Amino acid sequence: MVFISLRQLTIMLENLKIGILGGGQLGAMIMRHAIDFGLSVSIMDNDAHAPCSRYTSSFFCGDPASFEAVLEFGKDLDVITIEKEAVNINALRQLEKQGVRIFPTPDTIEIIQDKFTQKQFLLSHNIPVAPGEVIQGKNDLYQYESKLPLCLKKRRDGYDGYGVMVLKTREDIAAAFDAPCVVEELVDIKHEISVIVARNEHGAVACYDPVMMVFSEEKFILDYQIAPAQLDEEILKEATNLAKGIADAIQLVGILAVEMFVTKDHKILVNELAPRPHNSGHHTIEASTTSQYEQLLRAVLGLPLGATALHLPSLMMNVLENASLNTDRQGKLQRLLDIPGAHLHWYGKEGKRPGRKVGHVTITGNTIENVIAKAESIRKILN
Amino acid sequence: MVFISLRQLTIMLENLKIGILGGGQLGAMIMRHAIDFGLSVSIMDNDAHAPCSRYTSSFFCGDPASFEAVLEFGKDLDVITIEKEAVNINALRQLEKQGVRIFPTPDTIEIIQDKFTQKQFLLSHNIPVAPGEVIQGKNDLYQYESKLPLCLKKRRDGYDGYGVMVLKTREDIAAAFDAPCVVEELVDIKHEISVIVARNEHGAVACYDPVMMVFSEEKFILDYQIAPAQLDEEILKEATNLAKGIADAIQLVGILAVEMFVTKDHKILVNELAPRPHNSGHHTIEASTTSQYEQLLRAVLGLPLGATALHLPSLMMNVLENASLNTDRQGKLQRLLDIPGAHLHWYGKEGKRPGRKVGHVTITGNTIENVIAKAESIRKILN
Repeated sequence: MVFISLRQLTIMLENLKIGILGGGQLGAMIMRHAIDFGLSVSIMDNDAHAPCSRYTSSFFCGDPASFEAVLEFGKDLDVITIEKEAVNINALRQLEKQGVRIFPTPDTIEIIQDKFTQKQFLLSHNIPVAPGEVIQGKNDLYQYESKLPLCLKKRRDGYDGYGVMVLKTREDIAAAFDAPCVVEELVDIKHEISVIVARNEHGAVACYDPVMMVFSEEKFILDYQIAPAQLDEEILKEATNLAKGIADAIQLVGILAVEMFVTKDHKILVNELAPRPHNSGHHTIEASTTSQYEQLLRAVLGLPLGATALHLPSLMMNVLENASLNTDRQGKLQRLLDIPGAHLHWYGKEGKRPGRKVGHVTITGNTIENVIAKAESIRKILN
Repeated sequence: MVFISLRQLTIMLENLKIGILGGGQLGAMIMRHAIDFGLSVSIMDNDAHAPCSRYTSSFFCGDPASFEAVLEFGKDLDVITIEKEAVNINALRQLEKQGVRIFPTPDTIEIIQDKFTQKQFLLSHNIPVAPGEVIQGKNDLYQYESKLPLCLKKRRDGYDGYGVMVLKTREDIAAAFDAPCVVEELVDIKHEISVIVARNEHGAVACYDPVMMVFSEEKFILDYQIAPAQLDEEILKEATNLAKGIADAIQLVGILAVEMFVTKDHKILVNELAPRPHNSGHHTIEASTTSQYEQLLRAVLGLPLGATALHLPSLMMNVLENASLNTDRQGKLQRLLDIPGAHLHWYGKEGKRPGRKVGHVTITGNTIENVIAKAESIRKILN
């Protein structure tokens, strides 16, 4: 059987009832591609004004982490997918028993939503990772004082660099997260790359080319990313093989972002997984034959995976909320949109706080040098 | 002043209240790109199950041709645009007086929604058109019997080949439309091409490369279109210059499709105008730097027009409802989506009738030959 069910696909795509847990910008970009397939999509987010609230006739305000809310949301749906990991696994398991298809599966989400079980899973499949240990709270950290500097990651609910910090001194420990965390040695990183891989129920796997990421020093938030990554073919091949191996190991149905470190001695370590559309795949909208968002829909609907070829060099920059963004907004927007190949994605979020991602710009051009030059112009415009 | 209003753009794109009259597939594709700008969009269509009804939290069931419905729909909006010409002009003029921005302007829509005033407008600006005369109904046609064959077009409300017929015999006259029509000499057509042109309030004009269209003989409905058009540079340049000239003459704010004939003696005649996104611009989603849908939003919001470069050879095929489409739907969809570079746009329309457009496929590839070969495979799959 290739499709979800003979009956459902016979009555056609638009009659499938799809659900998405989470209604932020990733959900909105899924909607962009759900429109291409004529799909009907229900979305739940705990913010009544989340970006997706504008883009479906079927938006529910509720907490994706709540058992009752997820159960109620999902009961009449055919397929549910996610745009964030912080969702209620027990409710998804219950819905699965009731016949709702959940992709990625609750098992996949559960392994990944905790950074320690994620690491253990990878280790058990011989995937190289940075070694890490679990602590229950801040007080446990003092025993690691002699090993500083260290990287501290909250086990759950981290995103966009929130939930990650580097500890260099005893004072940093005093200011550290007081929550269950993973403590990792600081890796001697040369590059950070990411690979988006898709897999469907039938075991078909499709991998995007690795992208190379550059993070801002202080915030651990992505500064920009380039595709194609300007690295050795050997490293890139190894990275895609690792991503494919993980997709198979976790029996992925959906898409998975695999963030990796390339160390100074040319080794790859897997840093983090995200079983959903990811920042590092934004550029696929403009630069790849099939966007990661369409690919997710193809994967969870049992459709053939799309071609992943990159047809244009591209660069993706996040737009972060900052004070200067609020002055001369008109002029800035005007100058940005005047740059050929600058593709604005403005998320329309309410309640802004400094440093929050409020949009991104994907820049395409004929050469990577041309794309980087445009990015530098845009950086000057936005700051 | 570059933007709609200083106040509005300062409070940012997502707080602008945009309205679209018409909620079919063109509206849905506008939504796809409204998401990129974080826009809030209200849509009105007289079909409660129109494709757009699924893709906005603000859908109204009402007739865009009704004075009362349009007035009620538009009263709290900032900007209104259209995805069909059959809209109530008087209501739009009234809303304009109340401060709502209407783009394209009511004047532009009014000139174009009647095929005879459209032709007169073009003639008055020295744009070459096929000569035509007005008739009030079928009985007037008998005086043209000696001039058969002729082309008969309803003055108003034609679309997708409905409202156009060729009269070859006295029997055809008996079966002709009994409505106000334009009667035209049959042009000795070598090619049909179309140019999408955009213009904003500040007079900036951007033109897409002409596409070449191939129509099915009996139905006058587009069979497929190719971009870039495989024609003389001189002809293509003349076509884009004509389109730009019309955009200026009609003081366009928005986008305009200019359908043209290239005659066997290498002359260009303008056939029809459509002041909205158009079938002949579908391919711009995948193949051009800026899609026609984003370009429309840029134009009506007073933003800079986007780059129109075609970065991939492309072919667009309509998918028409037919009996064979209903057998082995699964297998067909599977095989179609398995072709690299085949981009499905499925409209999810209810109430299908044979011959109705229910979707389209845009095919991209490295060469036009490669794209045509894929199209032939798809045609076999769908029929």
